[in-house]
Amino acid sequence: MSQTLTAKGRATRARIIEGAAEVLREQGVAAARLDDIRDRTATSKSQLFHYFPGGKDDLLLAVAQYEADRVLEDQQPHLGRLDSWESWKQWRDVVVERYEQQGDHCPLGALFLQVGRSTPGARAIVTALMRQWQEALADGVRAMQDQGMTSSRLDADRTAAALLAGVQGGVTIMMSTGDSSHLRAALDTGIELLRFHAAGEVSAP
Amino acid sequence: MSQTLTAKGRATRARIIEGAAEVLREQGVAAARLDDIRDRTATSKSQLFHYFPGGKDDLLLAVAQYEADRVLEDQQPHLGRLDSWESWKQWRDVVVERYEQQGDHCPLGALFLQVGRSTPGARAIVTALMRQWQEALADGVRAMQDQGMTSSRLDADRTAAALLAGVQGGVTIMMSTGDSSHLRAALDTGIELLRFHAAGEVSAP
Repeated sequence: MSQTLTAKGRATRARIIEGAAEVLREQGVAAARLDDIRDRTATSKSQLFHYFPGGKDDLLLAVAQYEADRVLEDQQPHLGRLDSWESWKQWRDVVVERYEQQGDHCPLGALFLQVGRSTPGARAIVTALMRQWQEALADGVRAMQDQGMTSSRLDADRTAAALLAGVQGGVTIMMSTGDSSHLRAALDTGIELLRFHAAGEVSAP
Repeated sequence: MSQTLTAKGRATRARIIEGAAEVLREQGVAAARLDDIRDRTATSKSQLFHYFPGGKDDLLLAVAQYEADRVLEDQQPHLGRLDSWESWKQWRDVVVERYEQQGDHCPLGALFLQVGRSTPGARAIVTALMRQWQEALADGVRAMQDQGMTSSRLDADRTAAALLAGVQGGVTIMMSTGDSSHLRAALDTGIELLRFHAAGEVSAP
């Protein structure tokens, strides 16, 4: 659908998605009605169905994609240039701050509760988000390797996968317990592992 | 309530919880009705309300506690004796196998969806589960330290917190994407960090 829209059409669609995301964040996905979203975005019923032919689920998935994009944008510019210990530290601080501010409300998680986490549309969004996030971290590991700041023997993809798992789990635990120490520990030990590989070029026994 | 029950009463209550857990696993928390649980456990309505005065939510929380206990039991005996590299490896294998078998259905997560993850009862169960799990891992780190197999300078609690976050995140990502490589990477790099601290007693730059 979005491919065939004119530039004006794409801008309108984007405006609706942004407004819908605001309404859903404020009111909660379960409580928000399409009429609230129409009011906020000054959109008619027929316009809404023109841009989201599948109705509410279609719109919710578009908002989920928008929220997924924000997850990565919120970590920039640090996530895109993890080429020094200082930038790793800045990225770490931004991640902790973002999720501490977010508290126990995860806009993306709330959307997936509503559309069903295992629907193909939701799965595709999470899978793409995880892949892009992991690739950015792996690029960072490789940037450190290229400069000789960590061991070239380190598996960059696996290191990135472990770090990503730690962030996800740290956020999940924080949302359930209110305690961000797991998130901090996961980030700090993940970066520490890179540093250890740098320091000694030691091999595992 | 359960404190004031006789031994026979406690056994009956436990039997209802086990039967309810079976029904909820088979039918899904949202679909299962109290009548299904009564049929399975051969319990009358008045019996059910005798043991669970708060009704369905009360029973669901008791099942959540039962499922939380199983999370740790399923990792035994390895989780309780992480005192050699071999036992860490066995624990790692059991965790991977357990969650790969579980696939995208998490009994505890499904229960919390129903009773509300942020209700005090649900929070207390998750918080206790995370604390016990982390303590078992920290005990394992200390057991390795006591034998001189990893550095005594390592912060056992932080190391355990990071490992736990990696497991949680790895499972979450696997449930969303069907891919267990993040879980494996988190476990493997977590144990690798212990080994690195063993090998070099190197200090971070």
